Formats: sequence, structure tokens, C-alpha cells
Amino acid sequence: MNNWDARYATRANKMRASEVRELLKLLDQPDILSFAGGIPDPALFPKDAIRSAYDDHLGEGADTALQYSVSEGYKPLREWLVRHMASLGVACTIDNIIITTGSQQALDYLGKLFVSPGDTILTTWPTYLGALQAFNAYEPRYDRLIPEGGNMTPAAYRNNAQAAGGEVKLAYLTADFSNPTGETISRNDRVKLVDLAHELDIPLIEDAAYQALRFGGENVPSLLALDIEREGHIDRTRVIYSGSFSKTLTPGLRVGWVCAAQPVITKLVLIKQAADLHSPTINQMVIHHVAERHFDNQVAKARAHYRERRDHMLEALTRHMPAGVTWTKPEGGMFVWLTLPTDMDGAALLARSIEQIRVAFVPGSAFHADGSGRNTIRLNFSLPGADTIETGMSRLGALIASEMKADKKLAS
Amino acid sequence: MNNWDARYATRANKMRASEVRELLKLLDQPDILSFAGGIPDPALFPKDAIRSAYDDHLGEGADTALQYSVSEGYKPLREWLVRHMASLGVACTIDNIIITTGSQQALDYLGKLFVSPGDTILTTWPTYLGALQAFNAYEPRYDRLIPEGGNMTPAAYRNNAQAAGGEVKLAYLTADFSNPTGETISRNDRVKLVDLAHELDIPLIEDAAYQALRFGGENVPSLLALDIEREGHIDRTRVIYSGSFSKTLTPGLRVGWVCAAQPVITKLVLIKQAADLHSPTINQMVIHHVAERHFDNQVAKARAHYRERRDHMLEALTRHMPAGVTWTKPEGGMFVWLTLPTDMDGAALLARSIEQIRVAFVPGSAFHADGSGRNTIRLNFSLPGADTIETGMSRLGALIASEMKADKKLAS
Repeated sequence: MNNWDARYATRANKMRASEVRELLKLLDQPDILSFAGGIPDPALFPKDAIRSAYDDHLGEGADTALQYSVSEGYKPLREWLVRHMASLGVACTIDNIIITTGSQQALDYLGKLFVSPGDTILTTWPTYLGALQAFNAYEPRYDRLIPEGGNMTPAAYRNNAQAAGGEVKLAYLTADFSNPTGETISRNDRVKLVDLAHELDIPLIEDAAYQALRFGGENVPSLLALDIEREGHIDRTRVIYSGSFSKTLTPGLRVGWVCAAQPVITKLVLIKQAADLHSPTINQMVIHHVAERHFDNQVAKARAHYRERRDHMLEALTRHMPAGVTWTKPEGGMFVWLTLPTDMDGAALLARSIEQIRVAFVPGSAFHADGSGRNTIRLNFSLPGADTIETGMSRLGALIASEMKADKKLAS
Repeated sequence: MNNWDARYATRANKMRASEVRELLKLLDQPDILSFAGGIPDPALFPKDAIRSAYDDHLGEGADTALQYSVSEGYKPLREWLVRHMASLGVACTIDNIIITTGSQQALDYLGKLFVSPGDTILTTWPTYLGALQAFNAYEPRYDRLIPEGGNMTPAAYRNNAQAAGGEVKLAYLTADFSNPTGETISRNDRVKLVDLAHELDIPLIEDAAYQALRFGGENVPSLLALDIEREGHIDRTRVIYSGSFSKTLTPGLRVGWVCAAQPVITKLVLIKQAADLHSPTINQMVIHHVAERHFDNQVAKARAHYRERRDHMLEALTRHMPAGVTWTKPEGGMFVWLTLPTDMDGAALLARSIEQIRVAFVPGSAFHADGSGRNTIRLNFSLPGADTIETGMSRLGALIASEMKADKKLAS
């Protein structure tokens, strides 16, 4: 007998498989109508461009494309990103940019850089599940941001953190079309978040994974752009911008980036060198090749495609959800967030939904650092087509209505 | 003014850029004869096979190749690795295997899994610099393994660790053709290491990055194979085998693997899911495609190629090094390890070598957890051709001889 499991008490017991992961295994069953995933529609992948980019870079330049390379990333891609960030109102140089293996890796490295056990991370309730998973490896506690006018004072956040035996070490959120709610933070509330980060003297991680996928409303400047406005130069900012090509070009190549003050990038380069040396050389070349030629077209295509699906989803919800259920009206991204009647449990609903109507989604409590939000669920609209959305919402609306009736009977 | 640098005191100050990295920047200068790197000869990369594998997988199957995938890795590649491990005397199933972004990532994740600040890691003096860098993020201390008959008792290692305020959490070493020394541990000493791991009840990480590159002497079973012999089943073993395609096929795709007891793999999958979701899908498919068709041929070619270079290196050393300098006679891998006279400093020698004779190598103290080994240097023979080796060793031998004379004069 061995005692691996006891040994692992150190860290990995804090990293149990999420229920969500277990649920997603169900999705292999072909008769399930799934609104659970958060993945792009492969119909949008620029397959031919990617194929010919690999072919190009594996010709004459193959020795470089297949060799070890530098931890900060492929220089022409970082140069392209300098121009891309400029188009978003962020003036920077290549020293403000590091390439990561998807934006998930940025969250892991930033947790590693900043967080010790017992420290406090500020984030919204709900927030991106993957961020909680990445940060949890560094054993933080969480305190709550309510950007739309509900944030506490810096002193209150500080006191809470000290009472818990640590310090406030970072804030994290998605400002545009967040995962899971699809909501966007206003310019005014963004300015206040940037101020809060400066007052608390902490980094503010801006997860910009969905930023390019706006298909309604007006652009709001990124937190990083607003911090540069405030401070006059990126190297004096507190915002750490985490970007990704996963939602615009393709996730399978695992290419993302961080744009931030140069001292942050310098430390991330050291961390990356120690953690995986560098992201795959050839993939960075291919993403650069394709971004340079097709980025704007791809984004335009994705916006039109997902706008149509969002519209289908909102119409189907209006048609099929009973009174007492509300939902967000996202101006971009991939998700709608449903609030069920207060006493209805999203996880219990999912179990019955899978069993009775073969419809899958993610229960909202998974996205809450404190496990609250039990009467919420996340619906994805980037992958299912119009018919699936119509059938799925019709079934789900009927199930929720019947649950509400049963609850009422029980109560009377 | 901001205080990023003060903020970073938490972790990143322990991750300063190594001198080595600074040195390697010099190597861009074209007139430097470099024996510093540790990279494969790109002349060996199976370029055409890789190019056509990308083309194949980006045809009909592109939707899968470019999409998100599972954290444990591409199943056909894990199945290939089960057969590969069987050929090395390791009976296992795909549940004993996870794909990593190079073997460097395995070291980071294993540090994250096992090590808390103040814990003890056992390793050889010298050891792989990248392992020290990966582990240092988790703030361990190190104690010394001397596999060739010099290990302490389990009780002594345990007492040292407790006196330092932690526990012995893992042991790490390279058994075959180590980086930096090129040396191989005997079967007898391997058995004792496996016994020690069981007595201490700790994981023993076997870094097998160079294992396939044997070009002399007789195969010695891996630590993992010996642990299976001892315990009867891989799921009862203590050895965590970390493998890589970087030295046999290509490093630029960043594909490695871990083979270990199933509970270890389960935890690593959770860590990987939280840290970067998964290694790039398409790269795993391509490595599988190429490994299935060309692995044995590639290994045969690499062995012949590096054997010739090792022979050139050993002959040149014999011809050019003055008495008082000794070196290892590796049966595989990429490195020879030189021991200079006791009072000669490898780092000072490098500075003069770059300046006076334009020859680069890595000073040995970088590979020592305690900074000792100042009179040692690492020479790479996988990249330089016969002429470079001859010229470089001729110059270096003359420089060392003149330093020895100067030292003698100073002493008399």
C-alpha cells in the first residue's frame, strides 16, 4: 500500500475535479442539447490560412520554427501585438508584451507571482471558473468586487485581508462580456476600479478573452487604456491585460499574451522560463502569420455569427421562459446568465434537465468563490445553432415552469 | 512612482535571471565558438515528416485539431507512449500518462504539487539548472544526493529537513547522461535510490530527457522500471518518469510526458487544467503522427550523429587539455563535464575566454544548488561540428594552461 493521497494533502486536495468537469463528460452523449461549453464555433476557424501558414514556416525556415526559442515569445508576433494594442488605445512597446500558452497560463503565472497562502484576491461574484481554479493553487481567500457601485473602501478590503492573516494581493475581472454573465462594466465603473487598484497598490488583472467579440452597444476603453490615461505611461499602470487568440482565431494552438508595465513582464518572463521555457515556436509563427493577414476579417465574421446566435437565444428565452426568470442581454461574448426564482437550485435543475429533457448547462454556483449563486445558470450560445437553441429553450422553459408549479404546491 | 519591485518580493525575487541567461545573449555574436547551449542539432529534425503531418491533420480533421481538448492529452499519443514505455520495461496504461508542454512543465507542476516553502528537495550536486529554476518558485531548500555510494541515511535526510522547518518532499535526478555531467548511474545505485525513496516515502522524479540518446555502453533500466520490479505494479511505485520528444524529434513543438502511478497523474491533470487547460492539440497530433512512423529511425540517426561529435570532443580534449584538467566520458546525451584545477574559477575563466579567445561554455556553479563547483564547466557537443570542436578545444586548452602557469607564478 502507498499513501500518495495523504502526501498530496499539501496542495492538490485544494484542486479537486470540479463538478462541472464531471458534468461535461455527459456531453459526449449525442442526444444531449448542450449549452454548457464555452468554446468557439469551429465553423469559424481560418483553417486554410492556418494550414498554409504551417506549410510556409516548415519550408526554408523550419530549423528556427522547430528549435527552442526565447521565453518572452516570437518577436514579430509581439510587434504585431504592439500595433494591435495601439488600436485599442494602449501605447506600448514589445517590452510590455509576453506570449503565453493561452490566457489561462497568464492567470496561473500571475497567481504564482503575487499570491501566498492566506492572501486575498478581489473578484466579482460570479467570475470565470478557470480563474478561481488557477488562483486556488496558491491558496488565497477571496473578497468581493461589485463594480456597479457596490465596492467597499480600500481600508475595508485591507482590514478584511489582514483579519484573515494576509494582504490584498490582486484584483481580477472580465470587463467585457464576462464569462459567465455576458455583462460589460461601464466606463465610469472602470475608472473607479482603476482608482481602487492604485489606492490599494495592487495589480488589477483585466481578462480580455472576449473583448474583440462585441456585436452591440458602444466600445468601452479597456481598463489598461484608462490606466494609461490616468498615469500617462504604461510603465506606471497597475492593470495587467490578459489577451487571447482562442476566441478570435483558434484555441487549439494555445496562444495568448499579457500586456502590462515592463517590470511585470520581466518577472513573467522569468516565471515562464522556469515553468515551460517558451510556448511552441511554430504555433507563435503561425498565429502571427494568420493574424497579420486575417485578424480583422475573422473578428468581423465572428461578430456577425455570434450576434445572430445571441439574437436567437434572447428571442427563444423571451418566448419560452416563465415569469420569475430573468437574464442578461449581452452585447458580446458567448454567454447569457439566467437568474431563477430564489429557491430554485441550478445544480438540482441540471440533474433533472439531463434526465428528463436532455438539455445541459452550467449551474451558477460553480462561478462563485463562496459557492453562492445557487439559483443561477450559465447558457452558452456560441456553439448551438438556431434549431438547437429553439428546442433547448422550449424544453428548459417548460421544465422550469413545472418546477415552479411543484414548488408552489409544496409551499401551499 | 510605483513600487512593482517591492510588491514582487513575494516570489519573483527568488527567480532572478540566471547569469547563464545573460551569458547566452552573447552567443548571438557570430564569431563566438559556442559550447554553451544544450540544444539538438536542427540538421536532425524530421522536417518533411512534420510538415506533411501538419498538412494531414489540418485537412478533414481540422475542426478537432484546432479546438480545445482534454487536459490529460491526445489519446492516440498517450496510447503510443504506453507502447513506448513498454519497450523500456515499464508496463502501464494510458491512465499512467499525461502530456506536458515539454518536460520542463512537468518539473513546474511537480514542484507545485509537492513542495511548500521550507520543504527539502534531494538532488545531486550538480543537477539540471532548469530543475532548480522550476522548483525555486516553490521556495524549497536542497539536500544532496550522492548516488554512487555517498547518500545519507533516510533518518539523516529527515532530520536535516525538520531542522530546517520542513519535510523531505521529493528527490530529483537524471539517471542517464545527465545535464550537466553526461554521467550515468549504475543499476546497483539506481536500486538503492528507489529503496531510499520508499524508505523516505517520497516521490523520486526521474528526468529522462536524454535517455534515448545512448551511443555507448549497455542499457540500464530506468528507475521507474526498477521500481515496478520492486513493487509489482506501476500504481505502487514512487518514481515519476518525465520524458520529452525535444531531444529525439524536435523541441519547438514543446511536447513531453509524465509516466507514473495513477494517483499522481490524476493530480497532474487537475493542475494542468488549472494552469493552461491543455498542450496545443495540433502539436500533439503531429508528434503522434511522426513518432508512429519515424521514432526509431530518428533515434538511430541521432545516436550516430551525436556519437561522432562526442568522439570528436573527447579526442580534442585529450589532445589539447593540460595535465590537471579531467573530464567525464559520457555514453550518451549532449554534454562533457570538465573539472579544472581546484583554485580555478569557471565563471572567471568564461569571462576571459569570451574576451580573449571567443569560446563560450557554461560555468559549473550554476548547476549546484549551493553555488559550489566553481572549478567546473559544462561543454556541449550536440551542436558544434568537428572543426568548431577542434578549434575551440585547442584555444580553450591553451587558455587554461596559461591560467595555470599564471596561478603558479602568483603562488611561488
